[in-house]
Amino acid sequence: MTSQNNSLPNVSLADIKSPEDLKGLSIAQLESLAQQIRDELCRLIETRSVHFASNMGVVELTLALHTVFDFTKDRLVWDVGHQTYPHKMVTGRFDKMSGIRTKGGLMGYPNPEESPFDLFMTGHAGVSVSTALGLFLGDELMRPEEGRKAVAVVGDGAAACGVIFEALNNASGLNKNIIVILNDNEMSICPRVGGLGRYLDGLRTNSVYKGVKNKVKSAVTNLPVIGKPLHRGLHNLKNAVKKGLVGGALFEELGFHYIGPVNGHDIRDLQVALNQAKRHDQPVLLHIFTQKGHGFHPAEEDPARFHAPPKVVYDDNGKMTLTKSQQVSYTNVAAAQLYQQMLLDKRICVICAAMAQGNGLEKIREDFPDRFFDVGICESHAVAMAAGMAKAGLRPVVDIYSTFMQRAYDQIFHEISLQNLPVVLMMDRAGLVGADGPTHHGSFDMAYIRHLPNMTLCAPGCAEDLQEMIPWAISFDGPVSIRYPKDGVSHVPLSNPVPIQPGIAEFINHNADDKLDGLVIVCGGVLGKAIEAVTNYENKMAQSGNPKQIGLVNARWIKPLDERIAQWIQDSPWTLTIEDGCRQGGFGSAVLEALSDKEIFNCRVKRLGVEDHYVSHATRCEQLAEEGLDAFGIEKAIEEMTSSAKDN
Amino acid sequence: MTSQNNSLPNVSLADIKSPEDLKGLSIAQLESLAQQIRDELCRLIETRSVHFASNMGVVELTLALHTVFDFTKDRLVWDVGHQTYPHKMVTGRFDKMSGIRTKGGLMGYPNPEESPFDLFMTGHAGVSVSTALGLFLGDELMRPEEGRKAVAVVGDGAAACGVIFEALNNASGLNKNIIVILNDNEMSICPRVGGLGRYLDGLRTNSVYKGVKNKVKSAVTNLPVIGKPLHRGLHNLKNAVKKGLVGGALFEELGFHYIGPVNGHDIRDLQVALNQAKRHDQPVLLHIFTQKGHGFHPAEEDPARFHAPPKVVYDDNGKMTLTKSQQVSYTNVAAAQLYQQMLLDKRICVICAAMAQGNGLEKIREDFPDRFFDVGICESHAVAMAAGMAKAGLRPVVDIYSTFMQRAYDQIFHEISLQNLPVVLMMDRAGLVGADGPTHHGSFDMAYIRHLPNMTLCAPGCAEDLQEMIPWAISFDGPVSIRYPKDGVSHVPLSNPVPIQPGIAEFINHNADDKLDGLVIVCGGVLGKAIEAVTNYENKMAQSGNPKQIGLVNARWIKPLDERIAQWIQDSPWTLTIEDGCRQGGFGSAVLEALSDKEIFNCRVKRLGVEDHYVSHATRCEQLAEEGLDAFGIEKAIEEMTSSAKDN
Repeated sequence: MTSQNNSLPNVSLADIKSPEDLKGLSIAQLESLAQQIRDELCRLIETRSVHFASNMGVVELTLALHTVFDFTKDRLVWDVGHQTYPHKMVTGRFDKMSGIRTKGGLMGYPNPEESPFDLFMTGHAGVSVSTALGLFLGDELMRPEEGRKAVAVVGDGAAACGVIFEALNNASGLNKNIIVILNDNEMSICPRVGGLGRYLDGLRTNSVYKGVKNKVKSAVTNLPVIGKPLHRGLHNLKNAVKKGLVGGALFEELGFHYIGPVNGHDIRDLQVALNQAKRHDQPVLLHIFTQKGHGFHPAEEDPARFHAPPKVVYDDNGKMTLTKSQQVSYTNVAAAQLYQQMLLDKRICVICAAMAQGNGLEKIREDFPDRFFDVGICESHAVAMAAGMAKAGLRPVVDIYSTFMQRAYDQIFHEISLQNLPVVLMMDRAGLVGADGPTHHGSFDMAYIRHLPNMTLCAPGCAEDLQEMIPWAISFDGPVSIRYPKDGVSHVPLSNPVPIQPGIAEFINHNADDKLDGLVIVCGGVLGKAIEAVTNYENKMAQSGNPKQIGLVNARWIKPLDERIAQWIQDSPWTLTIEDGCRQGGFGSAVLEALSDKEIFNCRVKRLGVEDHYVSHATRCEQLAEEGLDAFGIEKAIEEMTSSAKDN
Repeated sequence: MTSQNNSLPNVSLADIKSPEDLKGLSIAQLESLAQQIRDELCRLIETRSVHFASNMGVVELTLALHTVFDFTKDRLVWDVGHQTYPHKMVTGRFDKMSGIRTKGGLMGYPNPEESPFDLFMTGHAGVSVSTALGLFLGDELMRPEEGRKAVAVVGDGAAACGVIFEALNNASGLNKNIIVILNDNEMSICPRVGGLGRYLDGLRTNSVYKGVKNKVKSAVTNLPVIGKPLHRGLHNLKNAVKKGLVGGALFEELGFHYIGPVNGHDIRDLQVALNQAKRHDQPVLLHIFTQKGHGFHPAEEDPARFHAPPKVVYDDNGKMTLTKSQQVSYTNVAAAQLYQQMLLDKRICVICAAMAQGNGLEKIREDFPDRFFDVGICESHAVAMAAGMAKAGLRPVVDIYSTFMQRAYDQIFHEISLQNLPVVLMMDRAGLVGADGPTHHGSFDMAYIRHLPNMTLCAPGCAEDLQEMIPWAISFDGPVSIRYPKDGVSHVPLSNPVPIQPGIAEFINHNADDKLDGLVIVCGGVLGKAIEAVTNYENKMAQSGNPKQIGLVNARWIKPLDERIAQWIQDSPWTLTIEDGCRQGGFGSAVLEALSDKEIFNCRVKRLGVEDHYVSHATRCEQLAEEGLDAFGIEKAIEEMTSSAKDN
C-alpha cells in the first residue's frame, strides 16, 4: 500500500514534533510516515498488551486530519480514545510511546495532561459528538471571528450508542457545521450488531456503484413528468431519489450532509473529503471505510483478538504467537458457571454490550445462540431489555464491565430496582483495573447500587464464592448485582466453608467467639491480599513473642449486610474494613451506617478503599499498592490500628 | 368529532370493567366512550393538578389498542406513562379515577400493583421499546406457541431519547415483530427540538399528498430505463424512490417497516393500521398524528401549560382560569438568579432537557436565545455537551430534575468529574416530589454524586442560600452540583448570616461555643421543618421548666463537608443529621465517614432521611411526614435522642 519514493526528502517519524511538521508534506511522504507509524505499533505489541487493531486502522485518517485541520484551534475529539496512538505519535509524544500504558508513562487514551491536542480524557464510547458540539457552540460564542471547526471521530460500534443519536439530533436541529467522521470498520471490539450495522453494510456494498450512481442521478434529475402528478409530489420524488442515490439517507434524513463512503486508507481521498466537509455550513457526516489491523495480516484476519492483544512473541522461525495468561480469572469463572447454569435452566439468557470477548462469552454465544444477546455498546438498552425479559419469565443475566454499567444507572433504578425484577447484573472488572486507568476503574459500583431499594449486592472473596453466588442470584426472586475484579482468582480453602446465603458473612480465620485483638472485614476482590497481610502480621507477632489474633471476615454481602457485623465490631478493639472501591458511600460506609442504626457508638473503625481521586494507569498491583490495598498496605494499617488502640 | 348515534345501544364508561367489554363495540359506540373519557378528564382537572393534555391526545389510540389486541396476553408498554388515564379507565379502574395522584389513590403513572394491564411502573422516558423488546423475546422463548405481540407507545419527544434509538437498532438487528407506535403530537412536554422533530414535521406535511403519492409511485415503478445504467443502479434507484415516497425513510433505513402517518383521532383508521402492524413479521413503526389536549380548546392552544395544569376553576360566567400558586418556589428563585447572572456574565449558557417550563426557564429561553439550549429528553447528551462548552470557555449550567439527571450519571463521571470541568448541575426537584411518586423522587442524588472525585455538592437551606450559591458555583473553577426541592422556599432571617463559601456550614440558633443539649444538622430542603421542630421543642421544654439548648446547623455543603462538623458533634451529647434524600450513602453517611476519618469514635449520631424503600405518591408534606422528616417527626426524633442520651 505504501510507496516510498526515494527521490523525496526522507521524513522520519521521530522528527515530527508537532502536527505543524506534517503540513506541506507530499502524499508519498505521508505514506512513508504511515508505514513508520505501523512499524512502531508492531514493535509496541512485542513489548506488552496495548491497543492495536484500532490504531492500525486509523493511521491514514490521523495524518489526513492533522494536515487538513489546525488542531491548535480546531477541535478534535476521538470517541472512546483507544485509537489515538498514531495521534500521540504526531503530536509530540513519539519518544514516549515505548512507555505507554505503564506507570508514569503515556496513557492508552487521550489525556489533556499529556498534550493540548488531547481535549478530553476518554474511554467510554459515544460522547464525542456531544462534546464536539459543545466545543463548537462554545467557540462560536466565545470567539466567533475564528471560525473554528469541530471534528468527532466515531467508530461504527460507538455509532450505535444512544448518546450519539441524541447528539446528531441536536446538532441537526441547531444546524451547526460539526464534522462527524464515522470510522466504519465493521466492528466495535466484537463484530457490530443491530440494524445500523446492516445499514452501513448496505452502503459499503453500494459504494461499488459509485460511478454508475452519478449517471443515474443526472438521468433521474431530467426525468420527464409521467401522467400529471402535482408539482409537490414530483419534487418529493426527486429528493427521495437523490437521497437514495447519494447514500447515507439515514443521516441525510436526520439533517446531516452525508459524504462518502471514502477509502480510509487513501490519504489523498481523505484530504479531499475532509476539505469538502470543512467547507459546509451544516452538520456533516463523513463516512470512511477502514480495516482494523490494516497492514498486519494476523490482525486483519482476527481484529477482535488483536483489539488489545497480549504481548506478541516470535519464535526462531519467525512464527508469531500471543502470550497466554496462565491465571484463571474471575471472568473465566463467571463465564464457565453461567454456561453450566444455562445447561440446567432454560430461562437463563445472557446479555452483553459489545464485550462478548472481554467477558469470555464466546462459548455461550456459540452454543446458546437463541439465549445470548449482544446488544452493542448500548448498556442502557441492555438493562431495560433485561427487565422486559424478566417480566416475561426469563432469568436474564446482564454481563457488563462495572465502569460501563454506569451508563445504565437510571435503568437499574427505573427498570430493575423500582420494579423489583429478577435480573442478575454481573459487574465484571469491578475495582481497580490496571493499565486502562481512570476511565475504566469500576470503583463506584457499590456506591451507586447500594442506595437503590430492592437491590441485593454481593462481591465474592474467591473463585468458589463466585461459583456459588451465580446460581443463587439466578434463583433469587429479585435483582442481584455481583461485582468481581479484573484479576486472577483467589482460592480460600476452609475446612468448614459457610455456604452462600444472603447477608451471611464468613470468618476466614478465628471466629466470632474468639478473643480477638482486631478485626479485618474484607469486601470482595482483595480478600487474598488481606489473608496475606493478616497471616504475615500474626506470624511476625508470634515470632516476636507477642502473638495477636486478628479476625478476618469475608463479607461477601454489601446489601444486605450481615446483621452480626455490628456486634463483631463492638467486640473487637478495632476494625478495618477493606474494599476495592471508593471510600465514599461504599462497603465501609455501609458498615458505619449499620453501627449508627444499631446505636453502637463506641467503635474504632477505619475504612480502607480507593481514595477520593482518580488512580492513574499502572498495573492493578501497583494501583492497589498506591491505595494501600495490597498486602503490605493492609499489614501497615493493621499495625497502625493496633498501636493507636493501645494509645487510647 | 364524536357523533353519538342515539339508535345504538347506549354504552356507559362506568360499565366498562375490562377491555373485554370493548370488544365488538361499533365505531360509534367507541366514539361515544371517547367522549365520555374526555368528559371525565375535564372533570378531573377541576379537582386538582393531573396530567391532562397528553391524556386527551391518546383517547382514541387507547380504545383502538384495546380492541385490536388482547393485552391479557399481548404486551403493552406506555413510554413515560403519564398518558395512561384513558387506559386506566378501560382496565377496571374507572371508579377510582377521582382519587388519582392522591395518597392511597391511583398512581398518575402505570402501576403493576394496580392492574395486570400495567406491566411497568414508568415515569422516565425512552425505555418502552427496550422493555417491549425484552417482553417479546421472553414470550418467544417461554411460550412460543402463543405468538404474543408486544407494543410500545412512544411520544415524539421520547423518540429523541438515545435509549429508544438503541432499542430500535437492536430490534431491527434481531428482526422481531415488535410494534412501536410513534405518537406524534409535535411536543414532548415543551415543543420538541432537534433534527428528528423537523423530520417528523416533514412527514406530516407530506401526508397531505398521500393520494398523489400512490399515483407517482406506480408511475415510477414503471419508469423506462434512461441511458444504460447497470441493473443494480436501477434497482437502487427504485428502492430509493419507494422509500422516499412511502415516507419514514429514516425508520425504513433502520430496518423498521413504516406505516403511516395515520390520524390518531380516527378509531377506524387506527384499528386498520394496528391490524396491519400485527400481521407483519418484522419490526413495525406505526406513525400516528395526535393533538395534545384534543377536544378541550384551551389545552389544544397551549398544551405545555396543560401538560399537568394546576386546578382549573370556572367563574360564574363560565370563564376558565388556572389556580395560581402563591408560593415562591426554589425553581423560581433558581431561574430568576440564573437570569440575573446571564445579564452579568456572557459566558453563562443554560441547558435543559425538554423541561424549560418545569424549570421556569421560559424567560431565559426568550431573552437569551443564543445561550439557551433545550436538547430534548436527552440528559446524557446535555451533560456531555456542557462539558464541551466548558472546555471552550463557557460556563454552562445544566438545569435538570434530580431524578432525570440520573440518566446522565456516566457523563457526570466521564465528562465532568474526570475532566474536572466548570459545569454547574442544577438538580431541581431533589428529594421527595409529591404527587408524581416513586418514579420522580430525587432522593438518590447525594448518594450518586458524592463519591465522584472533583465534585462539589451543595444544598441550600433557604432561598437566600440558593441565590448566593448560583453565582458562587458559576465562578468556581470546577464542577458544582446544587440540589433543591420541589417546594416553596424557606427564609431564614439571621442577624449575622454566614456568607456562602465552600465547606462552611452555618449555625441557625445558638453557636458552636454554647453548651448544647443536642445538635441537629440539616442538609438542604427540610431546614424549615427542622427550625419549626427545634423551636417547638425548646419552647416546650422552657415552658416545662427544663430548658434545653438544641444547636441547629444549616449544613449547606455535602462535599466538601464542613471540617468543623466532627468537632461540633464530639462536643454535643447527641447529633441528628437530617436530609431529604436516601439514608444510604447520602449526607448523614458523609458525616459518619468524616467522624471515622478523624478517628472520633464515641458519638451518638442518628441519621434521618428517606428509608430504603420507594415512597408512594401523596403530597410532599404527607411524604415527609411518612419518613419522619416533617416538624413533628423531627421533634419526636429530638425527644428520643434526648431521652436515650439520658439513659446512657
